[in-house]
Parts: sequence; structure tokens; C-alpha cells
Amino acid sequence: MDIVVVAILCGLAAVLYGIVTSRSVLSASSGSARMVEIAAAIQEGAKAYLGRQYTTIAVVGIVMAVLVFLFLGAIPAAAFVIGAVLSGVTGFIGMNISVRANVRTAQGASESLQRGLSLAFKSGAVTGMLVAGLALLAIAGLFYALVNIVGYAPNDRAVIDALVALAFGASLISIFARLGGGIFTKAADVGADLVGKVEAGIPEDDPRNPAVIADNVGDNVGDCAGMAADLFETYIVTVGATMVLTALLLGSGLTSNFLYGLMALPLIIGGVCILTSIVGTVFVRLGGKQSIMGALYKGFIVTTLLSIPALYLVTQWALGGDMSAPIGAAAATSPAVDNPVAPQDQTVLSMSPFTGMDLFWCMIVGLVITGLIVWITEYYTSTEYRPVKSIAAASVTGHGTNVIQGLAISLEATALPTLVICIGIIAAYTLAGLIGIAFAATSMLALAGMVVALDAYGPVTDNAGGIAEMAGLDDSVRTRTDALDAVGNTTKAVTKGYAIGSAGLAALVLFGAYTTDLDTYFANVEVDFALSNPFVVVGLLLGALLPYLFGAMGMTAVGRAGGEVVREVREQFRSNPGIMAGTSKPDYARTVDLVTKAAIKEMILPSLLPVLTPIAVYFVIAAVAGQRQGFAALGALLLGVIVSGLFVALSMTSGGGAWDNAKKYIEDGNHGGKGSEAHKAAVTGDTVGDPYKDTAGPAVNPMIKITNIVAILLLAALAH
Amino acid sequence: MDIVVVAILCGLAAVLYGIVTSRSVLSASSGSARMVEIAAAIQEGAKAYLGRQYTTIAVVGIVMAVLVFLFLGAIPAAAFVIGAVLSGVTGFIGMNISVRANVRTAQGASESLQRGLSLAFKSGAVTGMLVAGLALLAIAGLFYALVNIVGYAPNDRAVIDALVALAFGASLISIFARLGGGIFTKAADVGADLVGKVEAGIPEDDPRNPAVIADNVGDNVGDCAGMAADLFETYIVTVGATMVLTALLLGSGLTSNFLYGLMALPLIIGGVCILTSIVGTVFVRLGGKQSIMGALYKGFIVTTLLSIPALYLVTQWALGGDMSAPIGAAAATSPAVDNPVAPQDQTVLSMSPFTGMDLFWCMIVGLVITGLIVWITEYYTSTEYRPVKSIAAASVTGHGTNVIQGLAISLEATALPTLVICIGIIAAYTLAGLIGIAFAATSMLALAGMVVALDAYGPVTDNAGGIAEMAGLDDSVRTRTDALDAVGNTTKAVTKGYAIGSAGLAALVLFGAYTTDLDTYFANVEVDFALSNPFVVVGLLLGALLPYLFGAMGMTAVGRAGGEVVREVREQFRSNPGIMAGTSKPDYARTVDLVTKAAIKEMILPSLLPVLTPIAVYFVIAAVAGQRQGFAALGALLLGVIVSGLFVALSMTSGGGAWDNAKKYIEDGNHGGKGSEAHKAAVTGDTVGDPYKDTAGPAVNPMIKITNIVAILLLAALAH
Repeated sequence: MDIVVVAILCGLAAVLYGIVTSRSVLSASSGSARMVEIAAAIQEGAKAYLGRQYTTIAVVGIVMAVLVFLFLGAIPAAAFVIGAVLSGVTGFIGMNISVRANVRTAQGASESLQRGLSLAFKSGAVTGMLVAGLALLAIAGLFYALVNIVGYAPNDRAVIDALVALAFGASLISIFARLGGGIFTKAADVGADLVGKVEAGIPEDDPRNPAVIADNVGDNVGDCAGMAADLFETYIVTVGATMVLTALLLGSGLTSNFLYGLMALPLIIGGVCILTSIVGTVFVRLGGKQSIMGALYKGFIVTTLLSIPALYLVTQWALGGDMSAPIGAAAATSPAVDNPVAPQDQTVLSMSPFTGMDLFWCMIVGLVITGLIVWITEYYTSTEYRPVKSIAAASVTGHGTNVIQGLAISLEATALPTLVICIGIIAAYTLAGLIGIAFAATSMLALAGMVVALDAYGPVTDNAGGIAEMAGLDDSVRTRTDALDAVGNTTKAVTKGYAIGSAGLAALVLFGAYTTDLDTYFANVEVDFALSNPFVVVGLLLGALLPYLFGAMGMTAVGRAGGEVVREVREQFRSNPGIMAGTSKPDYARTVDLVTKAAIKEMILPSLLPVLTPIAVYFVIAAVAGQRQGFAALGALLLGVIVSGLFVALSMTSGGGAWDNAKKYIEDGNHGGKGSEAHKAAVTGDTVGDPYKDTAGPAVNPMIKITNIVAILLLAALAH
Repeated sequence: MDIVVVAILCGLAAVLYGIVTSRSVLSASSGSARMVEIAAAIQEGAKAYLGRQYTTIAVVGIVMAVLVFLFLGAIPAAAFVIGAVLSGVTGFIGMNISVRANVRTAQGASESLQRGLSLAFKSGAVTGMLVAGLALLAIAGLFYALVNIVGYAPNDRAVIDALVALAFGASLISIFARLGGGIFTKAADVGADLVGKVEAGIPEDDPRNPAVIADNVGDNVGDCAGMAADLFETYIVTVGATMVLTALLLGSGLTSNFLYGLMALPLIIGGVCILTSIVGTVFVRLGGKQSIMGALYKGFIVTTLLSIPALYLVTQWALGGDMSAPIGAAAATSPAVDNPVAPQDQTVLSMSPFTGMDLFWCMIVGLVITGLIVWITEYYTSTEYRPVKSIAAASVTGHGTNVIQGLAISLEATALPTLVICIGIIAAYTLAGLIGIAFAATSMLALAGMVVALDAYGPVTDNAGGIAEMAGLDDSVRTRTDALDAVGNTTKAVTKGYAIGSAGLAALVLFGAYTTDLDTYFANVEVDFALSNPFVVVGLLLGALLPYLFGAMGMTAVGRAGGEVVREVREQFRSNPGIMAGTSKPDYARTVDLVTKAAIKEMILPSLLPVLTPIAVYFVIAAVAGQRQGFAALGALLLGVIVSGLFVALSMTSGGGAWDNAKKYIEDGNHGGKGSEAHKAAVTGDTVGDPYKDTAGPAVNPMIKITNIVAILLLAALAH
């Protein structure tokens, strides 16, 4: 059977898993009428927000689709629309299952920890499998249609342009979804906490707080829908970039059949890992020690171990059975012989021959990177280890020392992942050159189904805790959901570290695609990417600036929108004293509506930053110093944004997770427990960490991709 | 007369100015016996700390001197010792004048604002002129001795090695001084604030606080001595790197006489700007509006404007009178013709001919960059503008929103300086290639005397306020010193932005020296610095990691040492209840001693990070992938550290200054004034900003230089 067809079948299996598992989740009890009522309010708010958000994004999307059509043609425009729409669909489905699973998890947790974990994780797994499945279907379906139905050669420019446009569609929607959702969730969270916990002195998720529903809506539209769109984008971009780079670098040196197999390999890697992820989900259950993290780890480890032989087998299949025959030797001298700069670059890109076995080892490198990043992130964000405990201890001496220690940990948390990524780059590159790095990134992303499952479980448990509190369930239920939620903070940080780590590899691949495209389109322009070229340094600096500026905008947006929530809640308390007395209900919908408007307004400008900057930098530098320096600066910008973005994102997501769990660690009874001065300081740290880890930090990942993809599209548009 | 001799005379003029002005400051009244007693305690603590600090550094310094002697020979070892010793001397003198001026400024402020400003500024000017003067004397003296006395050619390897070793000595001592002083001052400050203001509820600088003397000592050993050593280092490295680059790139193509003039040009630029700075100091006086910032600006503007014709005249002189003759054409093809990679790089480094007029315009670019950075930093850190006001407004909704807004501003504050630096790089490069960038950086640093004067005035006024408070002077005195201090926060941030901005240019120059040295020493090794080489990417990532890891260590050190101060102060309050009652005196010396030990212990490891990392990266990568990739990764590391360090340093120093002044803005009666909830939140922000702006952030500047210099020395050592 055709490899791509098998990959498509695997994608369909993921969708089937999603449908079956959704039914299983939905068949569970929703608990009392009060719980159903609360959940309905959250559902309504989440739907209303996502509807408005996607309507707004659609306007930008349509403009972009028209531009893609005008500059690149009909097929890329169609691919762009597919990527954009499916990105939106992924977010919508993720949100829909999560707003239904939350109340069922609360009810499940009232029965047992295992039942709560099981429901929350199943809901996460639905989102996870649909992210991976839909992404795989989109890219494999497009490739199959263009090559096997329309009849293009696998490395035809039409196929490459379509893959890049698909990635652009997915990325563009993702950055809006990630940022809009991130601003919504944290504006509501910060606002609710500031007036509720700090001013009014009522606990988190108290039904008297007019922002409490908005806060719970936020978990679903930000941590769930936004995250799903983000990982969908990461999957498409990574797998797509691997295929594009394979076509560009090796296309002219291989037989059409062999190239088809090699380009299909990333797809079947994704396909087979969906199957191993589905098997892995079965193993997520509490052991004798009742360790929640242990239960999740079991599923992850089973998936990873099963993936190893599976990757070997599909590689062998895709390469026609021979794992030791050299690949790439024929292409060693190809792409741009007439370009005096390029050959040297190409030698460095290493098209020295590598074998199927080398590729397999690169995939193992990807799996090892994923495992290490999971482990390092857990170290930095779990309540078990030094970093979180040090922040908790620093809370004893006040707000200031809590924040100082949290910032120190957030800076420190970048070190080990960076070393892992550097070693991974060197290992994969030594094995199989740039193609090796691409396949390492692909095998990282192949586990996305499982990783997203672990992450999407988090907001469900967070919501479940909120519902338990608002519905006045027994304290033991809240204790169980809190335990689930603390692990959720870690798994949420893990996904972000994983996404940005894979971005580190993917950006190199995209840069490779950029330089190769440059050789193809502008063979007569000698671009010098050496660090001794000051325009390269300027490009690096401008690229490095993007995550900072973007982060500043994200943080300011949360601060501003959060401030509006504070004023709204104060106003409701003031005009309706019955709320605090418990005699009348606050107007939840008004707060949701306010946050919705604020988040959508605030997401536009920062999201356009990575779209417009590469274009502006190219044209300004080209005008000042000529086209070749324009290309050099633009290329350097692509690496600058990853070199700086990696650190900004890692520090923000790990630091934020650590602050959050330091608060939970104190709430568990350490350093005086709830209500102590240390706890107040820890709440401050948590508030600071919120926009760090859930707004600005994670949105850096799609931002990096967009910058890269826009640059590649710009080359195509300039060449046309 | 010989140009270098004139430069030396200018350096001596600076020293003379220092002596005369010191006498003028010392002749002012020290006020009451109580004030003298307090000042004596501060003096004693500062001397004890610096003594211990330099003793510890001396151990490291001697080891390094021996290594330099063994690997490079006697002259470089001697140059290293000169740089190291003078760096220490600069710090000592700066501290000595500042601990005497503080009490006189307090007394002066009791007479009038003008008198306080005048004394504080004069004391700052002594430090400023000595920094510039001693740095110029060191480098001009060394150059003169080697060329005119010993008889080496200006571009002889012995001269180049000596200049690099001199810079290494200055940088190595500076990073210890900056970091050790930074940890001391902020550990004492944070500790004093946390127990004093927050727990005991006593005002800042209350004599009952056992950490109050340590806090005031910190201003002198950190903000004054540490800063002086830092700027001394920046001056030496920038001027030295310009000379070295001139020798390396143009040495073989020019006549010996012309080369001597061109290499002496940076020295005479420094010399003449000392004279314009001295003239500028005369104009620092309050106008009709009593604007303190205005008074300081007057001095700065006069200096800058006078420097323009002065720079033109000395350039004309150094180049033999002809400003329009082409320079560098003969060298266009020289350094490493036998290296197939290098020629292309060299073309890009641009040795296309440029004229004296081009160089003059590059110097103007440097002045414009300096002016713009001063103006941007003032915008971000002064109480007059949106950034500080936005942090103050965010304080109303609590600690969390204050910190969020402060972080947002700190991220945002990197944008404009980066754009200015990028435009400056392009402008200078377009005018005169890499040499143009070097001369732009040199003219920036030529203003160091004036800039340091503006900065060093800050800690003196801060101390004066403390002495006024402790000695129980009239509230009007404290109001005046507070007004002076608020401006001091801005000027302190300005110097840091200026130092790191110049580092952005200097790092490019040092990278140029690295690649040129590589071509000279290892002409047979083809090093590929293109961004498409994954080892370059790995180098960039590892370089970018350094400021993060270094920042984490600095922040943790302050947190840990500050925690020790908190425990010590609590213990004194507990064991001696008479302190709070005002019946017995706290043991100030015990606290000073404790902070001294903690700071010295904590400074060692992070200071060695930039010394050891380049060596480790080279040897590890060379072992894995061969020498050429080792050189590529090492070179990329040098740029990675600046690309990331620029942002880390700018965000930390501007953000910290903004937080500090947001607190002052509230204390001025906005948002409820002192004692309000907003004020408490602003104190938290200030505490967080302290290690940002005074420990981790500013130490990034010498860190960048050391990394670069160690790499250059490593090349020399490997070649020998």
C-alpha cells in the first residue's frame, strides 16, 4: 500500500480515537444541577469568545489568502486556507471537549482520584490525538492530492509552495489564537485574583467573584484552544519543513520513487507515532503510590519505547528496505553550482552521504531530546525539587524576594534545555547533516499527540477545581483536583518547553530552506551569511529584538486588560452589595464580554509584528545597501529570532510554572500555608508568572515560525 | 609634538583636574559631629570591603598573570598587570572621593539645592576624569613605550598582544569589582528594606536599622567603585580594540608613519574629549527652573558640541592634514590571501578605501548614538514620562501588576536602543567598514569622563540622603537629596545603557580582531562563519546562554546574601530590644562584615564563567568536530553573547531604573503617596529591580568583553 495512504489512515485512526473517547467522556455523569449550570456558563462564555476571536482572525485570514493567491497562485492559496481552517477547527474541538470534561472530572474526582484523572486525561487525549491527526491529515492529504492525483513531481515547486502556504495558514491562525487566548485567560485570572483574593479576601473560584466564570473560560480558550492551535502549527511546520528541505536539497539527485519515499517518511513517522500514542494512553493510570505524575509518565514512556522499533520499521519501509545504502551523495554538488557563495555553504549544509540507519539514529536523537526536555522541565516546575522550593522559601522574606528568586530560576531554567538542544543539533548534524536535524525535529513532533494529551488535561482539572469550589462540593474533591492541577502546571510547562525546543531545530531547517530557496531563485545574488558581515549582525540583533518587543506587548496587554477586569469587578461589588452578602448573583456574562473585547483588541498588533517585520527589514536594508545585504539581514533575522526567542520563551514558561507551583507548595502547608505572609508573596509571584507562562512565553513559538515562513514566502513572491 | 605624547598630557590633565577638584570638595564643611561619625562608619566599611575584595581578586589576578606570562611572554604579562592594577586603583579612588563627598553633599544640601548638586557633581567628575584619564594614560603610555622607546613597529605582534593583555587585565578585575560590589550593595539594600521598611515599619536609612550602614557602604563599593572599574574596562577595551583592528587590517598596506598616526588617533580622540569634558563640567549648574536634569544636560551638551570641532581637528592632525585622501585601499586584498574562505570575508569586512572625512563622520555617528541612548534611557527611567508613570499606576492594583508592568517596560526598553545601535552600525560601516564601527565606538567612549561624572554623582546623593536621615537633619534636606537622587537613578541607568550600547559596537570590532587573528595564525584552517553552519548556530546559542546563566547566578547571589542580612538584622532586633527603642546602637560593623564575606564568596563563580566558557566550548567542539568547527563555534559564541547580552543588560538596567523611580514618583505624593498600598507595591518593584539594575544587568558588559578577549588570547596561546 502507498506510504502516504497509510499515513492518512493513521490520521483517520486518530480522529476515530477522538470520537470514541469523546463519547466515553461525555457518557460520564455531570453531577448536580448546580454543577451543570456552572459548566453551562463556562461553555457559553468559551464559545462566545472563540466565535468572536475566529471571526476577527477570519478577516486577517481572508486578506492574507487573497495576497497568497495574488503572489503565489491558486494552489498555495487553497493550502493556506486548509491550514488556517484546520488550525481553527483544532482549537474549537479542543475547547468543546474540555468545557464538557471539566464538570465530569469534578464529579469523577468526588468518586476517586483515579476517576478524576482518567476523565481529565481522556479529554486531553482527545485534543492531543485530534491535533496530531488533523495536522497529519492536512499535510499528507495535500501531498497525496498534488502528487498522486494532480500528478506533480514530489519536488515540484507547486508542491513545495503548497506545503509552505499550508504552514503559513496554520501559523498565522495559531499566533492569534495563542495570543488572544493567552491574553483572555490571564487578564481574567489576574483580574479575578487581584480583586477577589487580595482585596475582597474571598478564595479562588469563589462564586461571588464576578470574574470567576471568565477565569474558567480562560483556561479553555487559552490553555486548551490556544495551545491546541499552537501545537497544530508546530506539527505542520516541522513535518512540512522536513519535506520541503528534503525536496530542495536532495530532489535533483534521487529517483522520483526514492524521493517520494523519503518525502513520505516524515508523514509515516507521524502516522505510526499516533498509533503508539494511542497505545500509550491506555497505560495512564495510578499505581500503588497514587503518583499522578507517575501515571502520566507511564503513558509517555510506553509511547516513546514503542516508537523506537516503529520508527525503525517505517524508515526501512520508506527507503525501500535498505537501511545502509548511502542517500544524498548524488545531490552533494547540486543545487546552485553557478553561485560562487553557495557551493561552500552547501558543503557545510553537508550533503555528504548518509544512510537510512543514520536517519533512524537522528529520530532517536529527537526522542531523547524530548525525554530530556520533559525531565528538565519537571525538575524546574515540580514541587518536588530545589527550584520551586527555593522560590517558596524566598517567599518567607516577602514579595520582593519571591519575585527575585523566581526571576533567577526563570533565567537559570534556560541552561540545560539549551545544552540539550545544542548537543542534539550536533549529533543529528554529524549523522546526516541538515536533513538529520530535520528528522530529529520530526520525530520530536511525532509524539505531539501524547504530549498534548498530557497538557490539555491540565486546564480540565483546573476548571474541575473551580466548579467543585463554586458548586460547594466537599473539600476532599478540591484537594484531589488541586493535586491533579499541580501536576497540570508542570505538564503545561513541559509542552511549552517541548514546542520551543522543537522550534530550535525547526528554525534551523527553515533557515536551510530559506538559503536553498535563495540559491534557486536568486542564483546571481551572492549573499554572504558570515558573521563578519555587519548586516548579518544587524539582522541578528533585529531578530533578537522581536521576542522582547512581542513579550512587552503581551505583558502590557495582560496588565491593561487585567486592570479593566479589576475596575469592572469593583464596580459590580460597589453597585450590588448583595453579591458579597451572597444574596444576589454577580453578572458573570458582563465580565466575560469585557475580557472578550479586550483580548481581541489587544491580540491584533503583536500578532502582526512577526508578519510585517521580515518584510520591512528586507525592504529597508535592500534600499540602503542593496538586495544582497537585504537577503543577508533577513536571513540573520530568522536566526536572531530563534536565538533570542528560545531563551525568552524557556525562561518565561519555566519561570511561570515554578512560581505557580511555589504557591501550591505553600498552600500544601509549607512555610505557614494558606493565609500566611509567605502565601501572599507567593500569590504575587504567581500573578507575575501568569502572563509570563500563559501569554507572552508560549506565543513566542508560533511567532518564530511565522517570521521564518514569511521570509520564505517573501522570496517566492519576489521571484515571481 | 608627538600625538601620543599629547594624548598622555591630556590624561595627565584629567589627573590634575581630579586632584584640584578633590581638594575643592574636601575643603567643604562636613557638618555636625554626628554626620562625621556616620560618614566615618561608611568610610571604614567601604575601605574594609574593597580591601578584602581586591585581596581576593589579586589571587585570581596573579594566577592569570602567570598564565599570560607562560603562554604569551613577559610584555603581555606586564601589560596585564598594569590593566589590572589601574582598574583596581580607579575603583579605590572613586570610592575614596565618594565616601568623603557624601557627608559634604548632605551638609551642602542643607544650605541649598545648588550647593548639594555642585558638591555631588564635582565628586562624580573626579571619578569620571580619573576613569578616562587613567585609562588613557595606561593605553597611550604602553603604546608609546613599546613603539617609541623599545622600538617596535606600531603593528608588531608584540604591541598587539600587549594591548589585548592590557584589556584583559582591566576586564578581569572589572567583572569581579562590578559583580562583587553589585552583590554587596543589593544584598545590603534588599536586606535592609525587607526587615526595616516592611517588617519593622521604620523608614529607609533609619539609624535603628542594623543594615543601614552596610546599605550606604554598598552605594560606594557597588555603584561607585564597581561602576568606575567597569567604565575603565570599557574605555580600555574599546580604544585598544580600535588600535588592534587598525593594525591588523591596515597594518601591511600603510607607511609606518601613517599607521602610527592612525593608531594614535583613538588615543588623541580620548585625549581631546577629556579636555571638552572638563570644560563641560563648568556648565553643570541649576538654571532658573531649578531643573537638576537640565543642569546635568547642560554639561553633557556643551561637552558633546565642543567635541565635534575638536574631533575634526585631531583627525586632520593624526592623518597628516589631508581629510580626503583614501585610506585602506592598499590593504584591500592583504591579510590572508592563501586562505580560500578569508578573502571573501575580508571583502565583506570592507577594506574599500575611506577618507579621513569618512572617519570623522563615523565619530559623529558615535556621538549621535550616545546622545540618543542618553535620551531614550531618560525617557524610560525618568518620572516625567509614560513608562515610569505606567508602573506607578499599575502599583495601585497591587504588587503583581506593578511587577508585570515593570517587566513589560523592561522588555520594551530594549527596542529603541537596539534600533539606534543597528542604524549606527550600518551608518559607520557604510562610511568606513569595520574600522568605521571601531571609530564610532571610540568616540562614544571618549565621552566617558562626562558620562561617568553624571553617574558617580548618583551614589553620593543617595548616601547624602542616608546621612541626612540618620543624623536627623531637617526634612527639607532630605527632600533636596531625594530630588538629586531621583535624577541619579536616571543617570545611573544612562551609563549602563551607554556602556552596553558601546559594547554592541565593540563586540563587532573584537569579533573582527578574532577573525583577522584567525586568518593570521591559522591560515590553513578554513573556518566557515556562515549561519548555515550548525556549529555557528550552536555557538550562537551557547553564547546567548551566558548572560542568562550569569544573570541567574547574580540574582540568586543577591537573594541568598540578602536573606542572610534579613536573618542577621532580625537577630539583632531580637537579642537587643534597645535598638528599636532607640536606647542602644545596633552593631553596624557585624552586618557590614557579614555582607562583605557573602559578596566575596558569591562573586567568584559567576565571574569565572566568561573566562572558562570560551575555552571549554573551543576544546569540546574541536574534539568532537575538528579544529575548524571549534573556531567557528567559538567565533559564533562571541556574537551570541553580545546579541543576547545586549537585551538582557538593557532590559535589566532600564527596567530596574524605572521601578526605582516609579517608587519615587509615588513617594512624591502620587497614587496615595508614602504608606499607601500602591507605595508598598512600588517598594516590591524597587526591590526586584535592585539586583536587575545594579548587580546582574551592568555586569553583563564586562562579561561580554572578557568572553571576547579570552577568545582572542586563546588563539594567540594556541598559535604559540
